[in-house]
Amino acid sequence: MIFSMSKLPPIGRRIYIDNAASTPLHTEVKEVMKPFLEANFGNPSAIHEEGVLAREAVDFARLKVARALGIKTGGVIFTGSGTESNNLAILGYLEALHKSGKTYAGMEIITTKIEHPSILSLLPTLEQKGVKVHFAQVNEYGIIDTTQFIKLLSPQTVLVTFAYANSEVGVVQPVSRLVRKIRQYEKEQGSEIIVHLDGAQALLWLPCGLEQLGVDFLSLDAGKFNGPKGVGILARRKQFKLSPIMFGGGQEGGDRPGTENVLAIVGAGEAISLATRDYEERAYKVSQLRDKIITLIGQELPEAFINGPQYKNRLANNINLSLPGFDTEYAVIFLDAHGIACSTKSVCAGAGSGISHVVKEITQDEVRAKSTIRLSLGEATTSEEMIYVVSVLVKYVAKMKPLTQ
Amino acid sequence: MIFSMSKLPPIGRRIYIDNAASTPLHTEVKEVMKPFLEANFGNPSAIHEEGVLAREAVDFARLKVARALGIKTGGVIFTGSGTESNNLAILGYLEALHKSGKTYAGMEIITTKIEHPSILSLLPTLEQKGVKVHFAQVNEYGIIDTTQFIKLLSPQTVLVTFAYANSEVGVVQPVSRLVRKIRQYEKEQGSEIIVHLDGAQALLWLPCGLEQLGVDFLSLDAGKFNGPKGVGILARRKQFKLSPIMFGGGQEGGDRPGTENVLAIVGAGEAISLATRDYEERAYKVSQLRDKIITLIGQELPEAFINGPQYKNRLANNINLSLPGFDTEYAVIFLDAHGIACSTKSVCAGAGSGISHVVKEITQDEVRAKSTIRLSLGEATTSEEMIYVVSVLVKYVAKMKPLTQ
Repeated sequence: MIFSMSKLPPIGRRIYIDNAASTPLHTEVKEVMKPFLEANFGNPSAIHEEGVLAREAVDFARLKVARALGIKTGGVIFTGSGTESNNLAILGYLEALHKSGKTYAGMEIITTKIEHPSILSLLPTLEQKGVKVHFAQVNEYGIIDTTQFIKLLSPQTVLVTFAYANSEVGVVQPVSRLVRKIRQYEKEQGSEIIVHLDGAQALLWLPCGLEQLGVDFLSLDAGKFNGPKGVGILARRKQFKLSPIMFGGGQEGGDRPGTENVLAIVGAGEAISLATRDYEERAYKVSQLRDKIITLIGQELPEAFINGPQYKNRLANNINLSLPGFDTEYAVIFLDAHGIACSTKSVCAGAGSGISHVVKEITQDEVRAKSTIRLSLGEATTSEEMIYVVSVLVKYVAKMKPLTQ
Repeated sequence: MIFSMSKLPPIGRRIYIDNAASTPLHTEVKEVMKPFLEANFGNPSAIHEEGVLAREAVDFARLKVARALGIKTGGVIFTGSGTESNNLAILGYLEALHKSGKTYAGMEIITTKIEHPSILSLLPTLEQKGVKVHFAQVNEYGIIDTTQFIKLLSPQTVLVTFAYANSEVGVVQPVSRLVRKIRQYEKEQGSEIIVHLDGAQALLWLPCGLEQLGVDFLSLDAGKFNGPKGVGILARRKQFKLSPIMFGGGQEGGDRPGTENVLAIVGAGEAISLATRDYEERAYKVSQLRDKIITLIGQELPEAFINGPQYKNRLANNINLSLPGFDTEYAVIFLDAHGIACSTKSVCAGAGSGISHVVKEITQDEVRAKSTIRLSLGEATTSEEMIYVVSVLVKYVAKMKPLTQ
């Protein structure tokens, strides 16, 4: 029995597999942040020594981000969160177009129904302004249907936005293929279509160079790649004009006002360097473990359905399963009591309760969408830990089964 | 000669008198933040142990803010900056009114021309929507003229917004008197007028209880009261509806989406407790020093004009002077080389260059507005330090005088 290796983790030792919600700070990130907690507190806009030190720290972090993403430093905007980056990219770009004379009614955008709340919840506002929002179809794994996608392109299309890797089911979109089609269409039409990727879940596991991907905007959140919370990044390949979504000082080249969060920005710069340096080895190692555990779930948990792509096109650290008929919010609590931290779905949609809009959309199965568990592994997650996790899930199912029938 | 005591500060010792731009972290604030830098990294929306620990930390910080400001915890919204708090209060409240059926063209607001860029720069957007913006007159000290203010009130007035204490010239507005007039007018008209104070500069020096002040919204920035940068507070007295200015998850009661910046929020909670606890003693002590130094400037620097109120109605830690004809951006650099950190004006309006819109407005004197120096003291600033600062200013004036004529 494979579970012979499985035992409770040492007391106080936790198995943290909710990295899609929040990642621990990297040791080296803590080290670069400490001087800014301890001593350096200047306002980067001030011209005295304290200000200059803070400005240099922000600029150095900006350089690190630019290098990691293969863009110019002028293309890096530090925001307060991944949510703010997504909002600024979409609302800011369309508003800038509007100010340049294009009517909202003359704009169309393409997205999907499986996006993060920070995208989906701003769409009604765009629609109220007159923007036409098209939804690209996704298949049962969550992959955008290229053939149908192409049909949505029109001379009015100004923006395409989707998650590089979905935060719930981990589907990685075929960015190159889609971008190729978009650029081809642009060329034929002589139009300009901006491609924005929500890369919040991607950075630790996928190539994120903007040139390489051929995309125009990329949103990131440092709290999702072993950096601090409270700082997002909006990266842009060229100097596309943005209208700021907040009003104030001239910080971040006029794109985002407010005193820079120096402590967190310094951490974000270090974290992005570390994250992008070895992402291929990291992704390879963790995806091997992921596949092994998905296979194990198939063997040991016949009640489970895996949501999202089986192996290919799946984020290296994502496992998402449904246990139809079981209360998976309680399963998360049961796992927690056994030393395991995971979630049912994206926590931004509210803790625990309700259905997964992503799984509902791709499976069209409400029961499955109501019973999801998302295990998002970290670089340090071990095979022993994951085998233990599956054993606890098996235990939960055995315990609850009599109650579900 | 009073400057006999004046000598250079010990090597490496700096005199930091730019507290209006950024304040150092309080030692106790660092201590409460450290565990969240070192270990606690959960997402407060997650229901497992790591998430619950983060949620409890955010809730505890919220409780501290609520207690410090005399409001319910439900009235505390954590944002990413003071700028965001100001934007959310004004844009969010008017948008909520609009959604409830009131036309923008039926709304009037009252503010002043000496506000921070995070207020002034959002006014054109409101005007484009049809909102009528009235500017209350301020006198030569920057104090709002109550008689003229009353005349601006109309049945269409929905919002009054101004800084409790001005960030450049330190004028403290007669909040109680203005609020009394507003409430009296509201009662006569049967209308509802929301009073929003930008309290960014106020918290360390003035009473900030919302009930006591009679105001509805108060914006704060933790980076200005010995807390961390990257976290603002919007406090509200009652549950006035707000429309979020960003779209995303349901965090902060639906008023502000995005994963909570736990590290900074924890620091903000501690900082506000410390700041409000002894503000009267702090303000008394520092204002005594301020007055002594303003007197000294009058004696030793005949070239200088003091901007803002002389003693009364002046923020305890603010000294603002003009040296007409002198290059005060260079003066700030000269002071910096002598170990002193200060600014010409609000750094949010861009470092150094240009004129102070505040001093221009109150003095109607462009030359004076182009030659400002703002000294914003800290709790620990000593008399010896400030005497030294004046001596360096005297030295600067003596050195540069031949070049100005």
